[in-house]
This record gives sequence, C-alpha cells and structure tokens, in this order.
Amino acid sequence: MSDKKEPLKTPIRDLGKYVLTDRISTRFTSSNEATLQGIGDDASVACFHEALTVSAQKMSLEGVDFDLSYFPLKFIGYKTAVHAMGQVMAMNAVPVQLLVCTGVSQRFFLEDLDELFVGIEAAARLYGADVTAVDIQSSYTGLSLAVTAVGEGNAGLMTRRGGASDTDLICLSGSVGAAYMGLHLLQREKRIFNGETGKDRLPDLKGHEYILEQYLKPGLPGVLLENLRKDDIIPTSMCLLTNGLSHGILSIAKASGTGAKIYVNKIPIARECFEYAEANNNEPSPLVAALNGGDDFQMLLTLPLANYESLSKEYSLDIIGHICDASDGCTLITPDGKSIPLESPGM
Amino acid sequence: MSDKKEPLKTPIRDLGKYVLTDRISTRFTSSNEATLQGIGDDASVACFHEALTVSAQKMSLEGVDFDLSYFPLKFIGYKTAVHAMGQVMAMNAVPVQLLVCTGVSQRFFLEDLDELFVGIEAAARLYGADVTAVDIQSSYTGLSLAVTAVGEGNAGLMTRRGGASDTDLICLSGSVGAAYMGLHLLQREKRIFNGETGKDRLPDLKGHEYILEQYLKPGLPGVLLENLRKDDIIPTSMCLLTNGLSHGILSIAKASGTGAKIYVNKIPIARECFEYAEANNNEPSPLVAALNGGDDFQMLLTLPLANYESLSKEYSLDIIGHICDASDGCTLITPDGKSIPLESPGM
Repeated sequence: MSDKKEPLKTPIRDLGKYVLTDRISTRFTSSNEATLQGIGDDASVACFHEALTVSAQKMSLEGVDFDLSYFPLKFIGYKTAVHAMGQVMAMNAVPVQLLVCTGVSQRFFLEDLDELFVGIEAAARLYGADVTAVDIQSSYTGLSLAVTAVGEGNAGLMTRRGGASDTDLICLSGSVGAAYMGLHLLQREKRIFNGETGKDRLPDLKGHEYILEQYLKPGLPGVLLENLRKDDIIPTSMCLLTNGLSHGILSIAKASGTGAKIYVNKIPIARECFEYAEANNNEPSPLVAALNGGDDFQMLLTLPLANYESLSKEYSLDIIGHICDASDGCTLITPDGKSIPLESPGM
Repeated sequence: MSDKKEPLKTPIRDLGKYVLTDRISTRFTSSNEATLQGIGDDASVACFHEALTVSAQKMSLEGVDFDLSYFPLKFIGYKTAVHAMGQVMAMNAVPVQLLVCTGVSQRFFLEDLDELFVGIEAAARLYGADVTAVDIQSSYTGLSLAVTAVGEGNAGLMTRRGGASDTDLICLSGSVGAAYMGLHLLQREKRIFNGETGKDRLPDLKGHEYILEQYLKPGLPGVLLENLRKDDIIPTSMCLLTNGLSHGILSIAKASGTGAKIYVNKIPIARECFEYAEANNNEPSPLVAALNGGDDFQMLLTLPLANYESLSKEYSLDIIGHICDASDGCTLITPDGKSIPLESPGM
C-alpha cells in the first residue's frame, strides 16, 4: 500500500543487464566450504562430502504468488528463497547454495531490485546458504523470480514422503493457519485501500503483526531438524507444508500407501488466528485456514511410535495424529469422535 | 504464425494443478543411476561419485526470450532445457537432472502444455538428463519457464572462465551467427504476417531451415567435450555462447585477467548466413550477427598452445585466435591486419 514513485530512485532502464547483475552480485560472497564456484561463471559448483545432492526450485509470479500492492519486494525475495530451501530441508538435507533468476519490468527502479535481493540475502544468511548465481533479465509482463536451492544430504538420513507406516506418529513443527489469515487480512485491507469496501475507514494492519509475519516472512524449522539429527531421530517421512495441512497429510499417505487419522483438537492453531476470525464475523474459519490455507512453511513429519516419550518432552513438535492402514483412509477426528474425510483440491 | 484456436483441445482451467502435474509427470522416468529421487517429493536427490555438483538455472519469459507467434512451444521447452544444460557443460561437467517450473495462463490448452514438455523431454533425452521435478502453476501474465540443470563434475576437469593464460588458443565448437539470422528472419516474416510490410506476399520460411534450426533448436557440443575428456585434453577456460562471440571473449578475458586476439577470417560463419544476408540487402551483417547476435549455444574455449597439432586434426574445433597480455586488450584482427577493439554492451 505504498507509493512507488519516489523521485530519487534510479530507473533500471538507465543501466544494462550486466551492470545490474554486477552490482547485485557484489552483495554475495560465498562462505560455505562446500561452495567451490559462486557467482561469475556458467554454473555453480559444490563439493558435498556426504555424497548426496538435494535440489529444489520455486518460481514466484506476480499476481499469483504475490500482489505487489501489499507484498514488499524484500519479502518476495525472502519467501521464495525460503520456499526452495524448505523443500531441500524436507528431505532432511541442508541447503548450501541458491541460484537466482529474476525478470523485472522497465518500470522498476534499481532500489526495488536491491530490496528484492536484500530479502534473498536475509534468507540465505538465516539458513546458511550461499547465493551462487544471479541472472537478471527484463520482463514485458510482471515480476518473475525463480530460486533453486541445492543442498547436501546423507543417504542414511534421507526422509522421503513415501516412508510412513502404520502406527507412526504424525507431527507438526509448529502452528498452522496463520499465514492464510495474514493473506486474508492483506486482501481485505487492499479492498479498503481501493475504496471497494469500508469507505468509512483507512487500511489498518496494526495489532496483526503475527499473522502478517507468518504470511510475508515465514520461518523454517531448521534448528528443530538439526536437533533431531543430532539425537539420531530420523523421520520416516516428511514434507514442507505449502498448500495446507490436508494436502500434506494426503501427499504422505498417498506416497506411503497408508491412511492417516488427525485429531482436530491436537492441531496447533495460534491464538491470533482465532482473534482475527472473531473480529471478522468468524471469517475465515481457523480450522479451514489450517487445513486448506497453505503457505505455513511448517514441516509435517512422521516418526515411529517408539519415539513418543522423548518427542513430547524434548522437542517443539506437536503430535496431531497417527498413520493407519490405507483401508481406513485419511480422516479428521472431531472432539466428539466423528470421522470426516480429509480433502484437498486435486488430491 | 499458427492459429491456436483448435476446437478439440482441452482447456487447462478444466483441470487442477495436481491433475496437470501428475499427467505431465508420467512422461518422465529417471534412467541415470545417480538419480535417487525424481518427481514426486519435495526435492530431487542425486548421488555423484565424482563428488562435484554443478548447477545452473535458466528462466525464459514470453515476449523477452520468445515470441509465441513464431516460437513453437516444443522448442521453447527444448531450448530452455538446452540452455541450462549447456551452462553445466561449460564447466566440463555432465548434466544429470532437470528441475522444471512453469507458469501458464488459463488461455492455454492441455495440448499446449504437452508440447512444452515434449520439447523438454527431447532435450533431456538427447543429453542424458532425467527430469526430476515438475511444478506447474498458473500465470496471470505471460508464459514463464524456469529450468535448473544439476550435473556431475570432477575437480580435475573443471573449466572455469578465469583459467586462460597468455598464448592459449581460442577455439569454437562450431559456427556462430546463424541463430541471430534465424531470429531476424522470424521477425521479418512476422511483420509480413501482421501486414506491416511486404503486403504483396505471404510469410515464407522455406529454404531457411538451417538458420531457423540454429535459433529454435540449437544443439550442444556434448560429444566434442566428451571426446576431449577421453583424450585428457582439459580446456583452460570455457563458456557457453548465449550473448554473442564478443561477449564470450570479453567474459573469459576479464575473468582471466588477459587480453585476446581474434582473427576475422578464422571465425566460422555458415554459408547460409551469407546467403540470407545477401538476399536481404546485406542485412544483418553476418560478422555482426556472429559477434553480437547471441543464442549460438556453441562452446568458446581456450587450450594450451601445445595442443595445436592434435586440435586441428582430430576434433571439430575452429581455432579463431589466441589469448594475449591484458595490456594488449581484446581485439579483432581484420584480413588486412587492422586491429579493432572487441565490444559488447555492458561489458
């Protein structure tokens, strides 16, 4: 909701592709020992002693993954990088390098491009990855950003989606639903800003910092995963939640050839989600936001039942249900014991 | 120049993201032993015994990298994949996996999407890579495609841009300039198709197959590089030509801290380039197309002078000049012995 036309900014059309790329590239120096070649050559090079290379790519497009009227460029860079790194972490691997391609239109300013890369830099630093490739090109349409994370894995620790078995505990690395609430708030306030609704007041995001942060600047449970590895606890399956809890559960069950039971009253939903919905005529439902909202960036993982004792005490993990036989399907158990089939569009 | 509205096609808006992704994914099965995890999980996993992971990403955007009115979708997929793999090959590494993200608008048909992936499949098969990730999302603007190539490298064979030294021979894996001629022809015929020029005739691409193929469906010198490796010939530097010969020479010289001398009459330019220009009032100049046209996808490489004898006999390489001291700069030597500084925008 900010005015982009500031007079002191530098239009990128005044600079060439290579000048821009060189300028942005000076921001990044590699610090991982594994990075043998960073920015400045045809490709990035890494040497992984643990022998497995784990790679994932995320593309973010204007109007689909973000709305520039309320999504600051810094957070677009940050979140896209975090998404790619989270996918690598979901294999129980460690992100080491980030490769970045972006297409920007001529209406952009150099300072806007800097903001985008400030966010990428922040994400890379937070999770210990080097930015090893930067390619900036022009775009005739909207802003596009593609980030690839390349990480190091270990064959003995690898967690695939298809590894869950009957009786495994289903766990979450943190609460879900708040990211969708944040998006809902931003869309509501945009309509007010545009004069479509609420003509008697101005857009106001105050007091909603938590849900906004979960949507714009989500974190990854890198420390939790590291602690589990240190204690030789290897999830039987794992996936990054980017399309809601239901989609994650159904993905793991489908890949593992199992069913799953999730208990409604065990799903961690932040207090702020209920507060936001309550002040908004109970819209959206916090449970629906948790199940189908998406963008939570939590890890959904399964662990053998034998880990039950240590899990509930020593790790910041929520146990929300358990894997069951495929014939029982994937269901949500309500507090009064009813079974509802879990659903997600297209699954 | 084709009419996209065919009645029997399936609009992609009738299918969900996951149905589409599943459908496209069935096209790809992994065949490299190194690929431990392909499509279907959070990330791709590879095990490289040679210990180095070499990665590169290319993003292609509608209106910038391709014009849908004359660039068939199949070739967009093919060329983007080839670009990413070529960057990996330019480090003297071998591409093993391709990760694909694409954003398509609702006006697309399932058959269009299939075409895009037919091209990616063809490129992957031709150069021996597995497609290990497919992500399809909607786009509100144009078509976007990002492909990451992940390959296996060997520390002893790695060729960086910065490794050239004084007296090294400068070589090309094949002829340059034709890709730009192909683009020029397509743009000219598009103007005729649109009625902007040449109202007395219809668009005609016949007889120009060679220059069109160089632009739409360029090849990579994978076999040449493999033969050099087999014979223990390791280039001192190498880069993929995607922005013209001048840009490549200047990149290697800059990274190596050297100068370079290129002989005009040694630059391999295909007969078809001269034929096209001649029939077109000598526009564009074949030499300018070679130097600044871009998109040739040849390898530019340097080799020690000691390799001179074997090079000219056994490999399909053209020696076009040599590296010199930085103080001599980067120059083009004309047939009559004049020196012209090599230039490329932004370098």
